[in-house]
Amino acid sequence: KAHKIAVLPGDGIGPEITKVALELLQAAGEAEGETFQFEEALIGGAAIDATGQPFPDETLQTCRNSDSVLLAAIGGYKWDTLPAAQRPERGLLALRSSLNAFANLRPAVVLPQLAHASTLKPEVVEGVDILIVRELVGGIYFGTPRGFTTNDKGEKVGYNTMVYSESEVERIAHVAFDAAMKRKKRLCSVEKSNVLEVSQLWREVVTRVAKQYPEVELSHMYIDNAAMQMIRNPKEFDTIVTGNLFGDILSDEASMLTGSLGMLPSASISGAGPGVYEPVHGSAPDIAGKDLANPMAMVLSAAMMCRYGLALPQVAAKLEAAVTAALDAGYRTGDLMSPGMKQVGTRGLILLNGLI
Amino acid sequence: KAHKIAVLPGDGIGPEITKVALELLQAAGEAEGETFQFEEALIGGAAIDATGQPFPDETLQTCRNSDSVLLAAIGGYKWDTLPAAQRPERGLLALRSSLNAFANLRPAVVLPQLAHASTLKPEVVEGVDILIVRELVGGIYFGTPRGFTTNDKGEKVGYNTMVYSESEVERIAHVAFDAAMKRKKRLCSVEKSNVLEVSQLWREVVTRVAKQYPEVELSHMYIDNAAMQMIRNPKEFDTIVTGNLFGDILSDEASMLTGSLGMLPSASISGAGPGVYEPVHGSAPDIAGKDLANPMAMVLSAAMMCRYGLALPQVAAKLEAAVTAALDAGYRTGDLMSPGMKQVGTRGLILLNGLI
Ligand SMILES: CC(C)[C@H](C(=O)O)[C@@H](O)C(=O)O
Ligand SMILES: CC(C)[C@H](C(=O)O)[C@@H](O)C(=O)O
Repeated sequence: KAHKIAVLPGDGIGPEITKVALELLQAAGEAEGETFQFEEALIGGAAIDATGQPFPDETLQTCRNSDSVLLAAIGGYKWDTLPAAQRPERGLLALRSSLNAFANLRPAVVLPQLAHASTLKPEVVEGVDILIVRELVGGIYFGTPRGFTTNDKGEKVGYNTMVYSESEVERIAHVAFDAAMKRKKRLCSVEKSNVLEVSQLWREVVTRVAKQYPEVELSHMYIDNAAMQMIRNPKEFDTIVTGNLFGDILSDEASMLTGSLGMLPSASISGAGPGVYEPVHGSAPDIAGKDLANPMAMVLSAAMMCRYGLALPQVAAKLEAAVTAALDAGYRTGDLMSPGMKQVGTRGLILLNGLI
Repeated sequence: KAHKIAVLPGDGIGPEITKVALELLQAAGEAEGETFQFEEALIGGAAIDATGQPFPDETLQTCRNSDSVLLAAIGGYKWDTLPAAQRPERGLLALRSSLNAFANLRPAVVLPQLAHASTLKPEVVEGVDILIVRELVGGIYFGTPRGFTTNDKGEKVGYNTMVYSESEVERIAHVAFDAAMKRKKRLCSVEKSNVLEVSQLWREVVTRVAKQYPEVELSHMYIDNAAMQMIRNPKEFDTIVTGNLFGDILSDEASMLTGSLGMLPSASISGAGPGVYEPVHGSAPDIAGKDLANPMAMVLSAAMMCRYGLALPQVAAKLEAAVTAALDAGYRTGDLMSPGMKQVGTRGLILLNGLI
């Protein structure tokens, strides 16, 4: 029986990296006797251009009818002048929210081949292996009330609500503790409870859930300190759990430890139904269509999909091994190029195919 | 006429670094024919222990009656178990708010003597000179409604409001544009307008204020991207303007470029009335009373006070020159120690005195 994948290439470099990832996924599947059925759908700017909406109903249906969703990237200058409510990003938020993909897993792993690519000293980043578990469908991203109003001085006011309920924190905490159990059993919960009530609730609930995981060593850190420790001594982190906004900031910061956004996959999973697998990087409109984009994060996102979404760890391992083999063989896209390496384009990494 | 300074030593290493800073300030003042009148007051844990309140009325009066407020650091393990509303941090927030110290200036300057102290590669941080202008008395730190409630499922919910009005953004934007005019004339406004309405208002107002500063090149960046660029290429930044929470995170992150929190001063100024001058670092209770703390951030905070609060640029320059001279002479506290340097304690830096 074929695994049904909703494929959302999106904008910018999205389509070209999707193509590479699908070819490799197909090849890795064949080698393991697995078949995939890909159904493409529109999201982001591409969807706005075709339908006027960043996340058309049809796309939602396609996603709901599939086992997993593989998304590339969305957005671009072209749509930046639209009113915020109609922009490509809204499509991404709607996708996450309508699939209830509440747990965003963002690994930041420094590969030995790339330790020198970071702007941090190699001895600081070597061996870094962090998993950030970000709550993805709550917090200030979705909290209400939100919007604009006029205050008593007659001025315009903009406002948003950062809000979490006990059950929202509980479910993400469980995902994080479970993940920590499979890792070094250290979990750091990041919030701002010295100032915010929403963070006090977060801390209270995470502390309560911790009782069910006596083997996991739980610590708490304020987001400002975490942003600092991430650079000062990233090796101190194993698993991190945090809210939507803090996770957005911290995971982008952590991505820089690895030297290139072009290497980082992510998984956004829900309790039931298909998860969303996507690279951490954006749509890079400036290099779109030029055969310059690094497709590795997309390939590794497909691997995460196989591992977490489809229970196909052998296929995942094949994809991961192909990426490692290409790096070992010295192949680099422009973002990772360094003296002595062999520069290839996006499609050039199709030669990974021979490595599967 | 003596300059009246409210001195708030606070907790942990606060008292010992205050002592050093006041001695140097006195010496630098004398050399320039200026006199200071110091009035000490309680804040944070010290105030809780003495009065039950982290920011007693008496302290507010002392601050209001002075030309400037020099604060060291607050907080410690001892008070960490108090209910949030009674903790030392609340004293700090109340101080900032009651003096309306809305503009927090946080320079992150990489001194050539310390470029190697950073965990980032020297070629990435050498020459970095960033000024972060953080809005300090609004946003989610002070926004209402806030608190706890019960939702329709009977669960506890915690919530806060991130809110800005036009005039709040205008006044901080003016401070930032004015600062940029005295620097490299580049201002980057950091927000999350692709998701948050409060950020859309922020961006709209900053863009409007920009028209009054045609010489300043304004750019906009999302906070997640800024957290990344701060590590990828910090030299691209000159002046940054951002809200309270984003400024908290970004300035702590930026502090790591410099290699030590122990070097970083800050100024929090209001349109009228005394400003608050304080190091960016905390109270470091683990090393308090051991003559280990680096007093340089405190000395540099006194320098910022002289420059921005008291219009005594010559005294400021003397203090800054003393710090530079001590570094040039190889004196380092433990946090900055490296082979070939001469390790000194907190009081040891009093020998700076000879350098004034
Ligand atoms: C595009 C944007 C809405 C999104 C977010 O903030 O979640 C992105 O930054 C991410 O982290 O996936
Ligand atoms: C102590 C804390 C309340 C404070 C803040 O968050 O503003 C501190 O982190 C700072 O940046 O001065």
